[in-house]
Amino acid sequence: MRTRFHQGLDELKEKLLVMGGLAEQAVDKAVEGYRLRDRKLCMQVLENEAKINQAEREIDEMALDLLAMQQPMAVDLRFITACMKINADLERVGDQAVNIAQRGLDAIGQPEADLQIDIPRMAGTVAGMVRRALESFIEGKADLAEAVLKMDDIVDDMNDAIFITMADKMQKDPIITRQALDALLISRNLERVADHATNIAEDVIFWVRGADIRHGQNRPDQDANGS
Amino acid sequence: MRTRFHQGLDELKEKLLVMGGLAEQAVDKAVEGYRLRDRKLCMQVLENEAKINQAEREIDEMALDLLAMQQPMAVDLRFITACMKINADLERVGDQAVNIAQRGLDAIGQPEADLQIDIPRMAGTVAGMVRRALESFIEGKADLAEAVLKMDDIVDDMNDAIFITMADKMQKDPIITRQALDALLISRNLERVADHATNIAEDVIFWVRGADIRHGQNRPDQDANGS
Repeated sequence: MRTRFHQGLDELKEKLLVMGGLAEQAVDKAVEGYRLRDRKLCMQVLENEAKINQAEREIDEMALDLLAMQQPMAVDLRFITACMKINADLERVGDQAVNIAQRGLDAIGQPEADLQIDIPRMAGTVAGMVRRALESFIEGKADLAEAVLKMDDIVDDMNDAIFITMADKMQKDPIITRQALDALLISRNLERVADHATNIAEDVIFWVRGADIRHGQNRPDQDANGS
Repeated sequence: MRTRFHQGLDELKEKLLVMGGLAEQAVDKAVEGYRLRDRKLCMQVLENEAKINQAEREIDEMALDLLAMQQPMAVDLRFITACMKINADLERVGDQAVNIAQRGLDAIGQPEADLQIDIPRMAGTVAGMVRRALESFIEGKADLAEAVLKMDDIVDDMNDAIFITMADKMQKDPIITRQALDALLISRNLERVADHATNIAEDVIFWVRGADIRHGQNRPDQDANGS
């Protein structure tokens, strides 16, 4: 039979997955709003921010309650603190979605410009990272998390390429400077989302590996390894 | 007499302050490197990143060890988890410093341009926010933390103003597009640092107020309030 504590852990995990869904949807919606020049979609992202913030606080409270409920074992301790960190990252994914939506609204206010860059493709890769990071967490699979770390390099390259293309475009065709800037900043926001996915993957690795290799001790200085 | 647990809490706090100092210095150095067009200063920021990452991991381990050491009281629990969150924010301040240094190196590679914007002034305001956020944490003062939240609006306005000025400059004088872009992106990085200071301030408020008003319960849903 499951103890109340372990039921609590399950609930925490479930709630975090819902939070992950909210954050993912927010990014999707913001990018769609930008792509389709749909002001309503962008506005929805801004309106939903409060919901994500509320979910973050609730998850934090749940985690604190679980920590207070009993002396957790090392593995549970790491799980709960990993949840708190992942939670913070997901909330910031939501913040990035808001930034994208704001730039989307700015772009919609400008004449349409053919920028010849593929923001939706980059967004697809980034969404895949977030999804996989969460998957690695649910399944406790460090190798899946490792794959996310590798994808981060691809997104960084996409972001660098967009920077160069847009800088060039602005210089050659200053009339579309504003539109190119919006695209460039959205690309940077997506790169930040990828960073958060990377953080989540690192937390998963730390949690899974740490649970395997750690043995009770109080000498963190000698135990820590920089990431 | 202080218990070993309480000595541990003191050490954790101290270590977090050292970490705060590292992160602050990194931002300072990156902005100075950009202002003085000093490649060496920028490079130092890139080299010091590993040190900040290492400090982050050590603080995390210390916090986990403290959580495992004994059933912490609610107030200590909140303090320790606040430390973990502040720690993550400081590490990301270090990441922003790296981004600034990278843009600084890019700018140094371009001909000098008079952009007529005051990045160092913005950096000064942002540094003040980080310092005050850490101060509010050391002294456990929610009102000091509230002041940080107000400063965030000022930084957002500075960032918006720089965006508009730079977009305008690029359009009128495309030859300095790259330099204007670097300035614009550094301004955004500084705005992100301000966001991290804001997060820290919010954690302090949550910790201080929570410690005052919370009473043992296990109904997080009804207890949480969105921020």
